[in-house]
Amino acid sequence: MCGTPETLRLPLDEAAALTLAEDIVSCADVPAFDRSTMDGYAVVAEDTFGAGQAIPAMLQVAGEVRMGEAADFELRPGECARIPTGGMLPKGANAVVPVEYTDEEAGNLMLCYAAAAPYKNVTRRGDDVKRNQTVLQKGAVLSPAAVGVLAAMGVAEVQVYAPPRVGVLSTGDELVPIDNAPAPGEIRDVNSHILSALCARWGCVCKSYGIIRDEAAALTQALQTACNENDIVLLSGGSSAGPADRTAEIVGNLGEVFCHGIAVKPGKPTVLGRVGDAAVFGLPGHPAACFFTASLLVRTHLDARTGAKAPGRTVKARLAEHISSNHGRAELLCVKLTGELAVPLYAKSGVISLLAAADGYVIIPREAEGLRAGCEVTVNLF
Amino acid sequence: MCGTPETLRLPLDEAAALTLAEDIVSCADVPAFDRSTMDGYAVVAEDTFGAGQAIPAMLQVAGEVRMGEAADFELRPGECARIPTGGMLPKGANAVVPVEYTDEEAGNLMLCYAAAAPYKNVTRRGDDVKRNQTVLQKGAVLSPAAVGVLAAMGVAEVQVYAPPRVGVLSTGDELVPIDNAPAPGEIRDVNSHILSALCARWGCVCKSYGIIRDEAAALTQALQTACNENDIVLLSGGSSAGPADRTAEIVGNLGEVFCHGIAVKPGKPTVLGRVGDAAVFGLPGHPAACFFTASLLVRTHLDARTGAKAPGRTVKARLAEHISSNHGRAELLCVKLTGELAVPLYAKSGVISLLAAADGYVIIPREAEGLRAGCEVTVNLF
Repeated sequence: MCGTPETLRLPLDEAAALTLAEDIVSCADVPAFDRSTMDGYAVVAEDTFGAGQAIPAMLQVAGEVRMGEAADFELRPGECARIPTGGMLPKGANAVVPVEYTDEEAGNLMLCYAAAAPYKNVTRRGDDVKRNQTVLQKGAVLSPAAVGVLAAMGVAEVQVYAPPRVGVLSTGDELVPIDNAPAPGEIRDVNSHILSALCARWGCVCKSYGIIRDEAAALTQALQTACNENDIVLLSGGSSAGPADRTAEIVGNLGEVFCHGIAVKPGKPTVLGRVGDAAVFGLPGHPAACFFTASLLVRTHLDARTGAKAPGRTVKARLAEHISSNHGRAELLCVKLTGELAVPLYAKSGVISLLAAADGYVIIPREAEGLRAGCEVTVNLF
Repeated sequence: MCGTPETLRLPLDEAAALTLAEDIVSCADVPAFDRSTMDGYAVVAEDTFGAGQAIPAMLQVAGEVRMGEAADFELRPGECARIPTGGMLPKGANAVVPVEYTDEEAGNLMLCYAAAAPYKNVTRRGDDVKRNQTVLQKGAVLSPAAVGVLAAMGVAEVQVYAPPRVGVLSTGDELVPIDNAPAPGEIRDVNSHILSALCARWGCVCKSYGIIRDEAAALTQALQTACNENDIVLLSGGSSAGPADRTAEIVGNLGEVFCHGIAVKPGKPTVLGRVGDAAVFGLPGHPAACFFTASLLVRTHLDARTGAKAPGRTVKARLAEHISSNHGRAELLCVKLTGELAVPLYAKSGVISLLAAADGYVIIPREAEGLRAGCEVTVNLF
């Protein structure tokens, strides 16, 4: 962990999609009163027992509940009250009979053609949230439904983690900006754009530092600046063997290298370290490898720094065909989901177009020689 | 369909997550040249045939390929060239032998201890994208991987659909803003916040018009204003029977009602219509029903208006238990995904807290009396 993630107090609407930095405990029951779920009559349930199409119960209409108002009367046995959907049950009432099972006669007499069990057609006080209940925990990502729960509780402001600031640098003498025509031997800087789009999707505030020439002085200066200005810095190497080593060396000079090289395919030359409070990821230069490694490692780091628990990141599926793997490294394999099958997509290293067709990836464990068709796999969704 | 969706020309990074309004056809091969995927030696593959640990092939080093530069020489039979990962193959070369299978001796003599098939360790020109290939179609949602493909092609600007403008109104005399303490019979306006968060997640630009009193004049004026200023207007009714009918009446006065009442539980009182060029959705007042109906109908409309094809919205799962349904309406049921099982979550109408625990919903068809445990279901992810 590098540094302590910053937190902010934000109005509920602005906090949507961010991660809670506090537990939310309800200080009241929601709803705060018993509510009708139908248009009809609030009744004393026991008065309706035995009522049916042939033998209606006869009840006296003692009043009418209006939306948004407390009932200013109390039902006594044999009495009922007109009530709209969402209306507050008057004292004494404990069920609602829908209007379609009733008739109202002259003299405020209501004929009730159906029995109602106690609390039938009623949302009871506290059914949604109980007083002192921990409704959402620190680390919860505020989904639209979670925003709804907080709104219902009257939580108008919440403490959340600030969106992480991520700096993105591309290195490599062969790189040109995407709007330049590459000369023979040159290629376009794809990784800045992939990493910016990934970070935006992950809710980060992203700043691109462009293409840095593959020289120690330029790299050192750019990395130091990016680390001063961000929580996380993503540096994707050029494709040559040199830059990855140089990344490790420069990160080591400015801060600390935790790891250089991981047993994952693609992603072998990855560098993990820190400079000051900034976490630094030295990612592979090949766009597809860069994309995979960021999806695996940067995403995990982002969740870990705030303890974020975001649901729906993985699904289970059955592998559509045998796949082999014997690299001595864990292998990440693109798959497309078709029904409940995960269909592997194969590509040469560095081919990015296939990723756009994939739904996610499967991890083949390091010790496995492959996976058999039909086995259950966890698909990490992109 | 209401009106023609507006399109914009945006720089690639700003277009991420938006929907393409044009087909993207490549005007060049990507990569533009044969590239090495390893550090090693570019060779004429045929020269290495039969080479092995015991009997190396002996090749003359004719030069060195530098990153970002075209090779200024051509390999003849019996020659090779040093090449870095990502380097451009010189003319005459058609494979790369990794450095770990070679030795270099005095006199620029390279000993090659492994045979290389033609194009081994080479990404060929056009492997990623071929000239004149339609790489992405109108309606594609620009995922980070799709941004990567476009960057690799040098597409620096794209024509995309403008984010839809969505106006949100809540109606109901029982509603108070969430930072107010509700008096007995009153409840907080949850739906504005749920709908704003959903729209933000769906990439819309959302404007909230607050709580509108349940009177024809106020509603008419607010709806007309919202329809003038937005592409889509979401109006969630109060919970009483009145507002839904009033919504239909007012939409009919200002424009056209397509449908009033749908055979879906929850969601029965939904109104669909238009005012001018704006699509109008009259959604149920119960927060849970409002959330469901928006997830089902508004989401579908948003995709339909631009032909957007977003992957990863549904997954297949097996139902964990029997569920019954015999309402004569299609029923939407919250589920939580546990492994490959979809576990139903039950709640009374209007209970929102359960939604925050759900991963998505399953649709029980109108004509079904329920679904059996173990059957395959499509889970629509929230």
